[in-house]
Amino acid sequence: MALIVQKYGGTSVGDLDRIHNVAKRVAKSYDQGNDVVVVLSAMSGVTDKLIEMAYQASEKPCKREMDVLLSTGEQTTVSLMAMTLQQMGYKAESLLGFQADIQTDNGAGKARIMSIGAGRIKRLLADKKIVVVAGFQGIDADGNITTLGRGGSDTSAVAIAASVKADACEIYTDVDGIYTTDPRICDKAKKLERISYDEMLEMASLGAKVLQIRSVGFAKKYNVPIHVRSSFNEEEGTMVVNEDSGMEQLVVSGVTLDKNEARITVKRVPDQPGVSAKIFSPLAEAGIQVDMIIQNTRSGGETDLTFTVTKADYKDAIDITKKVAEELGGKEVLVADDIAKVSVIGVGMKNHSGVASRMFQALADENINIRLITTSEIRISCVIDERYAELAVRILHDAFALDEL
Amino acid sequence: MALIVQKYGGTSVGDLDRIHNVAKRVAKSYDQGNDVVVVLSAMSGVTDKLIEMAYQASEKPCKREMDVLLSTGEQTTVSLMAMTLQQMGYKAESLLGFQADIQTDNGAGKARIMSIGAGRIKRLLADKKIVVVAGFQGIDADGNITTLGRGGSDTSAVAIAASVKADACEIYTDVDGIYTTDPRICDKAKKLERISYDEMLEMASLGAKVLQIRSVGFAKKYNVPIHVRSSFNEEEGTMVVNEDSGMEQLVVSGVTLDKNEARITVKRVPDQPGVSAKIFSPLAEAGIQVDMIIQNTRSGGETDLTFTVTKADYKDAIDITKKVAEELGGKEVLVADDIAKVSVIGVGMKNHSGVASRMFQALADENINIRLITTSEIRISCVIDERYAELAVRILHDAFALDEL
Repeated sequence: MALIVQKYGGTSVGDLDRIHNVAKRVAKSYDQGNDVVVVLSAMSGVTDKLIEMAYQASEKPCKREMDVLLSTGEQTTVSLMAMTLQQMGYKAESLLGFQADIQTDNGAGKARIMSIGAGRIKRLLADKKIVVVAGFQGIDADGNITTLGRGGSDTSAVAIAASVKADACEIYTDVDGIYTTDPRICDKAKKLERISYDEMLEMASLGAKVLQIRSVGFAKKYNVPIHVRSSFNEEEGTMVVNEDSGMEQLVVSGVTLDKNEARITVKRVPDQPGVSAKIFSPLAEAGIQVDMIIQNTRSGGETDLTFTVTKADYKDAIDITKKVAEELGGKEVLVADDIAKVSVIGVGMKNHSGVASRMFQALADENINIRLITTSEIRISCVIDERYAELAVRILHDAFALDEL
Repeated sequence: MALIVQKYGGTSVGDLDRIHNVAKRVAKSYDQGNDVVVVLSAMSGVTDKLIEMAYQASEKPCKREMDVLLSTGEQTTVSLMAMTLQQMGYKAESLLGFQADIQTDNGAGKARIMSIGAGRIKRLLADKKIVVVAGFQGIDADGNITTLGRGGSDTSAVAIAASVKADACEIYTDVDGIYTTDPRICDKAKKLERISYDEMLEMASLGAKVLQIRSVGFAKKYNVPIHVRSSFNEEEGTMVVNEDSGMEQLVVSGVTLDKNEARITVKRVPDQPGVSAKIFSPLAEAGIQVDMIIQNTRSGGETDLTFTVTKADYKDAIDITKKVAEELGGKEVLVADDIAKVSVIGVGMKNHSGVASRMFQALADENINIRLITTSEIRISCVIDERYAELAVRILHDAFALDEL
């Protein structure tokens, strides 16, 4: 007998039939003798519809009121789930964010969980009830409803699992685990049995949208094992765990692709202190997030500075950069939005040399030119021309023999 | 400058255009220098849709979970209203039942308000904000969401008005006031300028569905003046006030019609103590509400007992009554569902004789047979054959010259 937190996403509870299927799955775990806490998202599409209504009411809806509106989505699914479980003969009770005592800061629309009082959940479990908690929502110190941002239900589930000291946190989704790369791009992609929190953090931030990145950070901090699996079949998915937990360390666990960035290069700015700050401060003030930053040495007291931003921010970023470059005496601003970033990720890199050279050689063998390179302890990313993006993913998947896992 | 509570029903906030119209009306009152608290229902149709979903999830949805589900309706309208007011340049903030500290008992689905903490509403008003409160909902002592039953937003509004000591409680609806009778039946019906709480209580319970009856009881208890008016035009509606408040006392203020009852008569039961209890106890145990009860004297130690129930309970009531009648030695059970109840109502009756005889004579003049009669201090009701229902209303409206108000 164990204490299990199960989280189901929007497609898994997309209509009453699917809610019924999820209820059967929950009941099965309960029948096996487990205490079960279920965390739910809104039915798929509902959140988007609510946002659309908000934008009809106001050009720039106030975030506090948006959170009041959006939180109805999960409120609907948890009550319907509790009713469905009761109809099947189980004791069940729904809890909204404030009822489950999910305390957040006051960052409406993307609030952070400060604490969870496990008392009420524990009391209901002691009463042999299945507890159905609304994901994505909490309450701030002033009693305002808050939401945790897109994908926030993952974070709710992990945080609740940490708070009630659950044995496992199962994240049910519409894919059946974490893959070595996107199977739509590379048909040799393999499902990973295990992946470390750190690798998952790199995967999530690089576009593998299975888990909200903050939930992985939370899981790492409180050492909550996450089991990512499909709500549509019974197969084992992927365990996201501490890298020390006896797993075989792969040199490379996955290849990711991000086509959502664009590149800006400022050529030949003076190579002197304060130049980077002068370029990046106005971008930060405009709320533009910069991803990669690369500065190349150049002769003659000048330097080239290259960085990437999301395509959504690209045009604003060009305008700001051109203005600053002119003030600094920069000679030229080069721009490109037909780029893609491919990355290889693996905790094993820490202890293995030669990963970078193998990656560069594999791309070179296919005449794919590398425009930018950045690395972290467990990741190497290359910016290449967008037209080679999918080809590069397949080449790298082969180069690191990920299909042989 | 005054403190005004305005309540808008489901049709008044039925879509975003209508919400915008309501917002303009709210803003106008605010611009006149008033402090404004707005209480809203769910968009028309939404509650019915949610109930339908609940019955798809469960044959007999648990009331606690039903309340969680239904309360999303008002949550949606208050957030959209706050956004709309903000878009128009006003400071506004929504409050859900629990945030407005609307404490109820634990009677899920038809909870009663126990207390309202005016503190948060008062603080927001002091900050010159328009406060938008979700009607129909509250929270019980255990932190469960509760709802107040159909039409409960009226009660929310009146209770909030009592709690914040508002100068007036305006109930905006899709009719422009309280009429002497249903204008769809009698085209001479006239809008009343004023009506007393007691008359309104009789009207509400007899089928004039403009105000939830409990809201009128609340208003009477705390002496909150209610102004019932249309949300679609600017005309003055009807004031529902204390009968001592300087109003001219009409002998008869209105004629009501109720076609939703059916009649059951138990013939010739023993005229001895305990017989009534034996008949009505099993009905009460089955949750069947009995409206009129009339016992006629009969010779020979026997009596006839007649009562009415709603048509929804009619068949169950017959089964139960037949069984009891047999046990009691009753000779016959007569039933009829083709009946209607017409009533005349007026506080002036207390001080005027001859109202009953005028009513009976008017019906007799048209050869309408009276099957049952009951009276209260300010009401006389006659059960007649259903086919004469509308005719009787028009006759009585004329007989008491209500079109000459």
